[in-house]
Amino acid sequence: MSNVPLSGQRLWDSLMEMAQIGGTAKGGNNRQTLTDLDSDGRHLLRRWAEAAGCTMAVDRVGNMTLTRPGRDASRKSVAFGSHLDTQPTGGKFDGVLGVLAGLEILRAVHEAGIETEAPLMLINWTNEEGARFAPPMMGSGAAMGIFTEAEVLAKQDPEGLVFGEELARIGWRGDADPAALRDIGAYLELHIEQGKLLEDAGKQVGVVTHALAQNWLEVTVEGEEAHGGSPMAGRRDALMAAAPLIAAIEEIALDAVTAAGDPGRATVGRLTVYPDSRNIAPSRIWFSIDTRHHDPELLSRMATEIRERAATIAAHRGVTIRIEDFWYSPMTPFDPALVGRVRDAAERLGYAHMDMPTGIGHDAVYVARRVPTTMIFCPCHGGISHNEAESITPEWAEAGMRVLADAVLATAGIAKD
Amino acid sequence: MSNVPLSGQRLWDSLMEMAQIGGTAKGGNNRQTLTDLDSDGRHLLRRWAEAAGCTMAVDRVGNMTLTRPGRDASRKSVAFGSHLDTQPTGGKFDGVLGVLAGLEILRAVHEAGIETEAPLMLINWTNEEGARFAPPMMGSGAAMGIFTEAEVLAKQDPEGLVFGEELARIGWRGDADPAALRDIGAYLELHIEQGKLLEDAGKQVGVVTHALAQNWLEVTVEGEEAHGGSPMAGRRDALMAAAPLIAAIEEIALDAVTAAGDPGRATVGRLTVYPDSRNIAPSRIWFSIDTRHHDPELLSRMATEIRERAATIAAHRGVTIRIEDFWYSPMTPFDPALVGRVRDAAERLGYAHMDMPTGIGHDAVYVARRVPTTMIFCPCHGGISHNEAESITPEWAEAGMRVLADAVLATAGIAKD
Repeated sequence: MSNVPLSGQRLWDSLMEMAQIGGTAKGGNNRQTLTDLDSDGRHLLRRWAEAAGCTMAVDRVGNMTLTRPGRDASRKSVAFGSHLDTQPTGGKFDGVLGVLAGLEILRAVHEAGIETEAPLMLINWTNEEGARFAPPMMGSGAAMGIFTEAEVLAKQDPEGLVFGEELARIGWRGDADPAALRDIGAYLELHIEQGKLLEDAGKQVGVVTHALAQNWLEVTVEGEEAHGGSPMAGRRDALMAAAPLIAAIEEIALDAVTAAGDPGRATVGRLTVYPDSRNIAPSRIWFSIDTRHHDPELLSRMATEIRERAATIAAHRGVTIRIEDFWYSPMTPFDPALVGRVRDAAERLGYAHMDMPTGIGHDAVYVARRVPTTMIFCPCHGGISHNEAESITPEWAEAGMRVLADAVLATAGIAKD
Repeated sequence: MSNVPLSGQRLWDSLMEMAQIGGTAKGGNNRQTLTDLDSDGRHLLRRWAEAAGCTMAVDRVGNMTLTRPGRDASRKSVAFGSHLDTQPTGGKFDGVLGVLAGLEILRAVHEAGIETEAPLMLINWTNEEGARFAPPMMGSGAAMGIFTEAEVLAKQDPEGLVFGEELARIGWRGDADPAALRDIGAYLELHIEQGKLLEDAGKQVGVVTHALAQNWLEVTVEGEEAHGGSPMAGRRDALMAAAPLIAAIEEIALDAVTAAGDPGRATVGRLTVYPDSRNIAPSRIWFSIDTRHHDPELLSRMATEIRERAATIAAHRGVTIRIEDFWYSPMTPFDPALVGRVRDAAERLGYAHMDMPTGIGHDAVYVARRVPTTMIFCPCHGGISHNEAESITPEWAEAGMRVLADAVLATAGIAKD
């Protein structure tokens, strides 16, 4: 596809131009969903894509599609994209890279007058971040039937502003049916890795094969308050029970290794102490657990082992430990044909690449439940994201974009005259 | 001293009457310092003590003394008492028992027309609890020179009300010099144990020999945020470093055993997590440590061992752990002669008793820095205090009061005609 005039420089320039909308003093971006700045970003994308011959549609939850027709009217669209919204102290690349790499494909194809068999469709999903309106990935979730439109439209931000009203206020409440996006033929998403495996391994391209299964739990340890001056014998200190359980959770994750040598992942990200006084041994500790694994069976075994360890600790220390299921997301394999096309493209283009899962949720993970889907990862420095210091190199951006273009065009097919 | 007509029933009735001032629906007491209810409690005590022939004085921080003169004008007062203020959801006995047991001694001595050699002085210390105005033990602290009068008077409650102004408003800002209380000859305080050693051992009286040394630390663990989806290898998770350190703190306390078999005490009562998100491995954990020990050297060794363990964990996990000194209170031995007198009294009166330290701060611990002092502990059910469910039996109250009376009168001397 050497005849497709893709430009790494134009991609980079567009990234920098988009980054001026909501740019922060520290070089990051604050372009949260359904703000005026989100609208500005959407308008810029629209202008760019329409200049490249695309037609825009907007659905009832604000998902934007920019479509370039194909020659074969019977073919479903080959879609690609990501999201333009950012965290409050986000970076310039999370989401944006996937959207503007898709734009670059549309521009190059337009410029070269190339006709594809299937239509090409660039998607900007609404509210991927979930920072202002929780949960994340609301636009893709509504499109794929994970959430109902009604529940998405009714969500409120911390100030009580309503999603549907804010969407209308900024002028992006469309009339297309979000469920129509279930009917695309394929979806490919380029995204920064948000981890440092690629950088550490010296790879330019991550071939994403699947999304890890996720199992989130909540733990409540209940003991008894004791004054800091009381003897330790006979105490039922909830934190002294929680501490070894948290240490055990890490061990359990590291020990849950697949035949291929991949361990699980476990994070205790939130923890509260009651009554929260320096000289009172706590009577109640609550904490969250986020566990993830390639292998759903090992993930399930991790939960069983965590419960077993909790029961042992509870019996030994005279406390009660309640562990409740909070959220589960299944292991999501990506489409083998698309994964193969991405791997082939990286190979053909001479980029150092590696297969890897995504441990993180993305719009593509929801889309994959309905549509053949895959992802491409671009390295990012130090794995830092959701941070104004997020950074990538122009070379990495270009490599990801070229692999995406190659896989997209191979999927859509280039019409031969 | 069988001729002193002490009445356990009168003591109990007075406890119940005092408990009506600020009584709560759940049977506890809310008579916080420098409130109108505190003033009501003080007035009731004053009426009772004046009816027993005592003279009141109030000092500039509100400490009340009720004195009955002795025969020997050269003898310093033998003082006893505690505090009438309570926690917001406090019980009926914490502090109040010591004050009203002291009142019962004055009543009985008055009733029997007994003259002591030394004057007897009942003290109600201002703001022992520290619940409304922190820190605790402010009245005794100001009297003994731990705090300056000026700093005590300037303290503000959470609503911004000023200690000195509130003290004047309720009418209890006196003109006596609090430092004059350093000149008493002895101080004896009966208090509920706020632990369950006595109840578990089936003892009626605790002979308190000393106050434990206390060393309070603050720990900050700093690592790096990592997304819950990122591999665990290479993470620098601050909580996964804090958890084994907290577990180690417990071990270190239990292993710091004196020749007599007494271990240390360690409490992690407060802990905060940053950034406090379910799917982000924390980059920063802060927690408090409260350590106490009979033996100041072992207490100091505990801190050293905690620091050593922290250094090992920090090196192993690539995090930094900073441990700062927050507060230190020295081991405070009580006066051997007074302790012996309390033990002898319990023995003579036939009460099951045991020697024990106080692990908890009391007015007596500050007074002990300047004046020969001791304490007597009364059992309390389940060790529960600072709680509306705090409870003791009339028999326990009477036993403590009789031992206090015996030791007080042995110290003051009964004048022989």
